[in-house]
Amino acid sequence: MNNFTNRIPDAAVRRFSLYLRYLEDFERSGIRNVASGVLAERGGTTAAQVRKDLSFLGSFGKRGLGYSVRELTGVLRDVLGLDSVWRVALLGAGRIGTALFRYEPFRARGFHITTVIDNDPGKIGTRLGDVLIRGEHELECALQEDRTDLVIVAVPAPVAQALVDRVVAAGIRAVLNYAPTQLRLPDDVALRNVSMTVALESLSHALTRLRRCR
Amino acid sequence: MNNFTNRIPDAAVRRFSLYLRYLEDFERSGIRNVASGVLAERGGTTAAQVRKDLSFLGSFGKRGLGYSVRELTGVLRDVLGLDSVWRVALLGAGRIGTALFRYEPFRARGFHITTVIDNDPGKIGTRLGDVLIRGEHELECALQEDRTDLVIVAVPAPVAQALVDRVVAAGIRAVLNYAPTQLRLPDDVALRNVSMTVALESLSHALTRLRRCR
Repeated sequence: MNNFTNRIPDAAVRRFSLYLRYLEDFERSGIRNVASGVLAERGGTTAAQVRKDLSFLGSFGKRGLGYSVRELTGVLRDVLGLDSVWRVALLGAGRIGTALFRYEPFRARGFHITTVIDNDPGKIGTRLGDVLIRGEHELECALQEDRTDLVIVAVPAPVAQALVDRVVAAGIRAVLNYAPTQLRLPDDVALRNVSMTVALESLSHALTRLRRCR
Repeated sequence: MNNFTNRIPDAAVRRFSLYLRYLEDFERSGIRNVASGVLAERGGTTAAQVRKDLSFLGSFGKRGLGYSVRELTGVLRDVLGLDSVWRVALLGAGRIGTALFRYEPFRARGFHITTVIDNDPGKIGTRLGDVLIRGEHELECALQEDRTDLVIVAVPAPVAQALVDRVVAAGIRAVLNYAPTQLRLPDDVALRNVSMTVALESLSHALTRLRRCR
């Protein structure tokens, strides 16, 4: 029955997140039905792309009436796993790690940071919020004891790969990487990079073009 | 002469950032030449893709010898605009904004935060690092006085669009968005989203699939 959750392209899954955001806005505004063209306009894509993306979820939506906002919201929350609670280990309690720990939308989406690891002796044994900071030597124990689903990497780039190798060896199959480095992982581990430097560099490329056009 | 900087696909530009990171690693290790296949392996792509991406930059690289690490590094830094200094305005001096302000790789890549805007009366008039925090009513003046090239949006989602509309009206043509919302901007404004929630949701989709396969 849940076969439809297999093999949906990554790009479509990313658009599901955006569609869901718009649908939640529509629901708050009391809108009950929405046409693919309206979703497309909000997302800067085409109605055909919206229909193709949503066809991965099975067949629904009525010609002329569009999609039921409530039904589509439910289906997207389900396929995105948002009604589950995921147990997250944060590697690195520096500035970026601490900001992530306190970032409200994480918890609102079911991501609970239950483990924090750092290698600074001044931090180990203290708390970040209500979570005890543990040393790197405790990594494998902590992941097992806390039944971790997902790891967030917020350590400096040079130490990231070695730490992630241990995480994968410990059986973790999902990694969110904030370190400005390309991690090498086995194919069966889901990896998402949130690289601020890559985003910045593509902007400076755009700015360079603008300067040269003047 | 710089015509080659026009119309390079966004995805290729993003890969340029990654290639540059690997090349800098190679240079530190004393490696002088690198084959497209080696760059491809590090980036999880194919040698054909690497050659296609680099063909946007003109024709260089020698069959059998590969690319000169130093030459390619220079060309990529140039096309990514990394030897320029960009003046950045940070909108929002909350937790995420403060973490970004202190994020070293920004400055190392030529992005200097010279303006900080917030709407909290308790913050206005104080300093973040050596930059005075100014109120939202001063936004247009600050962007003009500080000759801002690029704006980073780190305010709560509900207020982001209105603020960005003012930024665009003030003539800014590059926006880096950290707010968990889809901003609507004119086509001639370069926008990059670094959405943590979209990345997280695509991971929870992957985790959901894993759970259902068990």
